[in-house]
Amino acid sequence: MTTYAYSDHKPLTFHDATRRFADGSDSPRAYLERCLATIAEREPVVKALTAINEAGARAAADASGARWKAGKPLSPIDGMPIAIKDLLETKDMPTEMGCAAMKGNFPKRDNAGVWALREAGAVILAKTVTAELGGAHPGPTTNPFDPARTPGGSSSGSAAAVGANMVPAAIGTQVGGSIIRPAAFCGNFALKPTQGGINRGERLATSQSTHGPHAGCLEDMWQVAIEQARRCGGDRGCLGLMGPDKTPAAIRPNRLIVLETEGWPDADPATREAFAKLLGQLEAAGVALIRRADHPFVETLEQAVANGRAVCGAITGWENRWYQRGMLDASPDGLSERAKASLFKAEAMTPDDYRAGLLARQQAQLAHAAVAALADAAITLSCPGPAPLWAGDVPGQPLAPRPTGDFVFNAPSSMLFAPVVTVPLMSVGDLPVGVQLMGQQHEDARVTGLARWFIENLARVTG
Amino acid sequence: MTTYAYSDHKPLTFHDATRRFADGSDSPRAYLERCLATIAEREPVVKALTAINEAGARAAADASGARWKAGKPLSPIDGMPIAIKDLLETKDMPTEMGCAAMKGNFPKRDNAGVWALREAGAVILAKTVTAELGGAHPGPTTNPFDPARTPGGSSSGSAAAVGANMVPAAIGTQVGGSIIRPAAFCGNFALKPTQGGINRGERLATSQSTHGPHAGCLEDMWQVAIEQARRCGGDRGCLGLMGPDKTPAAIRPNRLIVLETEGWPDADPATREAFAKLLGQLEAAGVALIRRADHPFVETLEQAVANGRAVCGAITGWENRWYQRGMLDASPDGLSERAKASLFKAEAMTPDDYRAGLLARQQAQLAHAAVAALADAAITLSCPGPAPLWAGDVPGQPLAPRPTGDFVFNAPSSMLFAPVVTVPLMSVGDLPVGVQLMGQQHEDARVTGLARWFIENLARVTG
Repeated sequence: MTTYAYSDHKPLTFHDATRRFADGSDSPRAYLERCLATIAEREPVVKALTAINEAGARAAADASGARWKAGKPLSPIDGMPIAIKDLLETKDMPTEMGCAAMKGNFPKRDNAGVWALREAGAVILAKTVTAELGGAHPGPTTNPFDPARTPGGSSSGSAAAVGANMVPAAIGTQVGGSIIRPAAFCGNFALKPTQGGINRGERLATSQSTHGPHAGCLEDMWQVAIEQARRCGGDRGCLGLMGPDKTPAAIRPNRLIVLETEGWPDADPATREAFAKLLGQLEAAGVALIRRADHPFVETLEQAVANGRAVCGAITGWENRWYQRGMLDASPDGLSERAKASLFKAEAMTPDDYRAGLLARQQAQLAHAAVAALADAAITLSCPGPAPLWAGDVPGQPLAPRPTGDFVFNAPSSMLFAPVVTVPLMSVGDLPVGVQLMGQQHEDARVTGLARWFIENLARVTG
Repeated sequence: MTTYAYSDHKPLTFHDATRRFADGSDSPRAYLERCLATIAEREPVVKALTAINEAGARAAADASGARWKAGKPLSPIDGMPIAIKDLLETKDMPTEMGCAAMKGNFPKRDNAGVWALREAGAVILAKTVTAELGGAHPGPTTNPFDPARTPGGSSSGSAAAVGANMVPAAIGTQVGGSIIRPAAFCGNFALKPTQGGINRGERLATSQSTHGPHAGCLEDMWQVAIEQARRCGGDRGCLGLMGPDKTPAAIRPNRLIVLETEGWPDADPATREAFAKLLGQLEAAGVALIRRADHPFVETLEQAVANGRAVCGAITGWENRWYQRGMLDASPDGLSERAKASLFKAEAMTPDDYRAGLLARQQAQLAHAAVAALADAAITLSCPGPAPLWAGDVPGQPLAPRPTGDFVFNAPSSMLFAPVVTVPLMSVGDLPVGVQLMGQQHEDARVTGLARWFIENLARVTG
């Protein structure tokens, strides 16, 4: 079996290919065929995809090629092959949500964000594996850099498809840590926008769910997100992602808050070591680092997110309980034991338990707003270490609690509704580990600009 | 044909029946049978119901009767027959949303609020006609006090079923004016809770949609709402309705803001005259009335809601466009011309058009918050006059713009996310007209207490 070492990894990019679409030295169709060749090579082991629409994608790529030749692309992502997490509806492929109860579900309509991608000329190539209903129960996907490891979840297939260079970009969704953690495990750039940044349209979501792109480079990540938002806007009631039409210019940080979050005690030693090296580079570049001991507002924020996993879990569990109960009643064998355990836990909650979660979330958001003037952004790990090993559940044994890895470093930005970009700037045991930059709500473009400065000015570190 | 004059109307109530359930002199089953008899009598003309589950209701009523006899009712609404607007899912009846494209839709699961009603012991008796998809295109329902007139919409059947004494309470939903307007046209009490007050659960809604009860009396109205909220809480991200376990005690207002809103120029003269008489009673009782000329904050609020219909329409149209487009694509004959016109209008909007609507809404909410200290609540008409005549669309003629009446007096509370109770304290031409009390967000119990003072201290006025 061929191995794909992270140290050899050269991500697939799109933004730098389009200049050759006009003169015919490359084309969206040829680009697509290269993606299909990679899929043929990698998919048998990576298992990132639940459906693929080759014929539709080829037709869309040809139409895109004609637009580029005519000098009239619909957008900078015209012709970009994109894969869509299988929680989101697509008119030309089923939407089964990693869930037996949803087997065969094929509503033949596009999610608002998918519609926007098509309007921008993107080629909707495939659906990607999601952990069941966006929760913890994993699908078959393996990590592109080690098939014995998880790709993370719940956006497992989107992260792995990008990490394996099957597509230059894929759409994920995050409620607790489902974009940033798998992206970090698979060496991707990814944006978890400010809550409500990209229109979910089909109404399948909890109060802290967001769509966001995984990509092989920062340029493609931003371009996908902004092309969506320019067409479909944000979620109902939200202003949605706003920012420049092209990837923001690099922004040099003067001060960064270093957040421990609930995750610090769980981070593995080599990863902490790599992170320390990265912080050393920042200090050498003259960036001031502010930690919890340095300012009471940072300490307040740390305390406010110190129970982040439980807060996210309670809020999300409660919000999902009615639709999941309906699903279970209609299909008693349609949910995994993991999903049922989550549902039963939620069904033991009261409205006041839920309200307590909401209040904790709002208090944390206030604490986050209070640090806005202290620094340009916050920085922390995107995951507690490289992707953990995962060999499947063992019959007769208790269910492993987090088979797709731990979202402990992601719960804070999720509950804060804050924009985050994960940057693949670390490597531990030749596996990718991400670092994340978090801004205030609606600072999506700003954190993207900071991320750009990071990749232009910092070297990848190993732990 | 029997006529049902409003002046002879004695609303059906439930809260005062339960005391006889324990001693066997009445029973939930007998109560239900009386409702069924009324339905048999009134439904052929009123046409309020889309489905009825007689067998299930009888079984539920019998089970409730056993609980009352054992002294162990699940709640004060145990045994109450309730009808549910057909936008909301019920596990035992289809959910067709007044829309040809949804014909036969039967998901066999309960909306969170419906689930909560069953948990409280309520008898889910029937589904009620909704204007198509909660919009403007009417169903067959007629006004219970004049079959030539609309019952209002979009909660047409819920309003008419209560107005015709078929059930003591029914659930409606409001995005623009779909609870309060039809309730006012049908002589009901109704609560449009603070945005997010009752959990919608199944995720079918826009950013300013709320569930709320219609009832024949204030006690039943409050009890239904609070029993739901105690079990299913509010919408995702919302604290949900909170308040006392029993109908709030009467609260005497000291000062009330009299709002004109965008609707004043459209109100009919007899209705204005009746409203003036009601305000006269308030002044005679020593209640100070504050109008736009009396305080700049009131003037600011009036201006902020002066374009309420258009703001509500733009926000709602945009938020509905993707699901309605998917519906139309899947079922080209499945939407009315009215619904298609709304969809096409929304499809011409940009994200910035939507953002402008959101900003107008937020500015109005700020203006509303600013008047909190000026008065106990605001008062205005619930509708521009009695229910208008409606004989159906005329083939070949342009579509009548508002066949279920005008929501011009309801757009303000909808966009303000504010709780409103409509009180049937006026009559024009022997048809009911409502007056509404509006509080600050989360003051649902307070406005209910004020409404109680109104009915205990003011006489019905005629115009």
